[in-house]
Amino acid sequence: MNRVINHPDQVVEDMLRGVLAAHPELTADPRNPRVIGVARPARGKVGVVTGGGSGHEPAFLGYAGPGLLDAVAVGEVFSSPTAKSFLDAFRRADQGAGVACLYGNYAGDNMNVKMAVKMAAAQGIDVKTVVANDDVASAGRDERIKRRGVAGEILMWKAGGARAALGGDLDAVIASAQKAIDHTRSVGIGLSACTIPANGKANFHIADGEMELGIGHHGEHGVKVTRTVPAKDMAALMLDIVLPDFPLERGEEVSVLVSGLGATPLMEQYILYAEVAARLAEAGLSIGFRFVGNLFTSLEMMGVTLTVTRLDDELKQLLAAPCRSIGLTMGDGA
Amino acid sequence: MNRVINHPDQVVEDMLRGVLAAHPELTADPRNPRVIGVARPARGKVGVVTGGGSGHEPAFLGYAGPGLLDAVAVGEVFSSPTAKSFLDAFRRADQGAGVACLYGNYAGDNMNVKMAVKMAAAQGIDVKTVVANDDVASAGRDERIKRRGVAGEILMWKAGGARAALGGDLDAVIASAQKAIDHTRSVGIGLSACTIPANGKANFHIADGEMELGIGHHGEHGVKVTRTVPAKDMAALMLDIVLPDFPLERGEEVSVLVSGLGATPLMEQYILYAEVAARLAEAGLSIGFRFVGNLFTSLEMMGVTLTVTRLDDELKQLLAAPCRSIGLTMGDGA
Repeated sequence: MNRVINHPDQVVEDMLRGVLAAHPELTADPRNPRVIGVARPARGKVGVVTGGGSGHEPAFLGYAGPGLLDAVAVGEVFSSPTAKSFLDAFRRADQGAGVACLYGNYAGDNMNVKMAVKMAAAQGIDVKTVVANDDVASAGRDERIKRRGVAGEILMWKAGGARAALGGDLDAVIASAQKAIDHTRSVGIGLSACTIPANGKANFHIADGEMELGIGHHGEHGVKVTRTVPAKDMAALMLDIVLPDFPLERGEEVSVLVSGLGATPLMEQYILYAEVAARLAEAGLSIGFRFVGNLFTSLEMMGVTLTVTRLDDELKQLLAAPCRSIGLTMGDGA
Repeated sequence: MNRVINHPDQVVEDMLRGVLAAHPELTADPRNPRVIGVARPARGKVGVVTGGGSGHEPAFLGYAGPGLLDAVAVGEVFSSPTAKSFLDAFRRADQGAGVACLYGNYAGDNMNVKMAVKMAAAQGIDVKTVVANDDVASAGRDERIKRRGVAGEILMWKAGGARAALGGDLDAVIASAQKAIDHTRSVGIGLSACTIPANGKANFHIADGEMELGIGHHGEHGVKVTRTVPAKDMAALMLDIVLPDFPLERGEEVSVLVSGLGATPLMEQYILYAEVAARLAEAGLSIGFRFVGNLFTSLEMMGVTLTVTRLDDELKQLLAAPCRSIGLTMGDGA
């Protein structure tokens, strides 16, 4: 594995130097270099925060910006940020109206967020949380609480960030973000493993000619390993997992997000999107929003994820609102 | 190599279906499905066109949009579009004020563009061209005319597209695009090969632990193959090729573009950017524009390219102008 790094143990520090140098609109918190945020959160606005392991770029820090996140706690590669980093992100984002922490359902993140919320309360900062659990393949429908958060988090951040930008109070921001993730389902297909730089070898394996349906963002086991199939059949397999999990009827409108996992070319992501769109049309669903690209990755893993969100008038308004960030810019860019 | 495709011989058609489905603001030309453009070029504006082989996404078609390109001729993977596709792109983009064709210096593209320009002239369409030759490693300084065009083309499209959007006539658009590429130098480092789907195997090879400095976008030989070095040294090697090729003095301002070649994670692109920025600061150069991401790729090749543009007041104005496209959105998005 040939990489553009200085040392495997300092990839996060070095990346952050680059991100800050390339994006003057983002700054590190003076108290904690592992907290990145917009330079000046608006006074009186609800703060919107997330955090997560590195290696998923542009997630998580690439969604900091107007109309999206105010501050992001940055972890080591594929590891939760510390409780202190979440706390410092809350402190940075708080402008007196409280903080919405919108994060993914992983053991480390859950533990550290909970601890940070308590510490914040002791400092008089009101933090409420939404936990993303859009990865359908990670647990059964009756165990949704166990499911992991994956690329659907982008929709949660977009909805919560837009509600906050529109002047919603903390409960309103939490309600919008919760609705967005409740209306969202994702599934992934893995086509190759990836290697954490500090480990030096992959901790899972996908053979040439095979694919893993339902794989997690860190190579967590999916629902089955099969021979690779054409893109059309990949779309069908993914939608056959995602759609039955919804209450979703013909004539409804959805948002579709296709993300590459890192090394799968944009060409192939569009090929998958074409097949997904064709099949959704057959299912009588219309597509109101479309996102295609390396939006939530896992280092140089090959593969794709599909995220479908059931839209209502509120979600349509929130998804259409302007935003500007490394990962997503829409409308007039706020 | 596990891919998300239906058939290796139809990746371009299938990708185009996906691009058109995902981006209603883009349409295929009714006469030629290999010509993609903005739905409604503005009347009376100079048309701005490019074309090139597929597999470099978001280049080339991902730079069609307001403030950038009006129409793009789409080739097979790593192959020039046909002369007819260039001609149809000219016809589509022409709104009576002529067409600027801003393309890269490759044998097939040169031949087909020249043929298309003649055919267009016979139809009364005035086409003038700029040929990008920013890849410093592809030929010596006294043979600049032989150099290939790589990611520096994005700056050429941005400058020409902005000049056209500002109402410049054909000569003004050509002059701005020519200046942009004359002020631009690029170099690449390859860290792995890539495979054209229809071939099924890589037509070049980079060993684990080795890198190729000066590699071309299709694996064309670079200036040397060495053991991999830390990112800091990669930045130094690249700048030591790029900077001496310029007339560039301390105190001047530049634009820096770092692109991943496909499979190199965004994390690593930012690590390289940090080192490039640090070294440019040491050289007394300030950075006016910064672009980091998978902006001009080569399928799933690992590696990075660095593009430096020497800025003057005109280029600063043109680069800052608004634009909106898959690959690049700036300002209010036009």
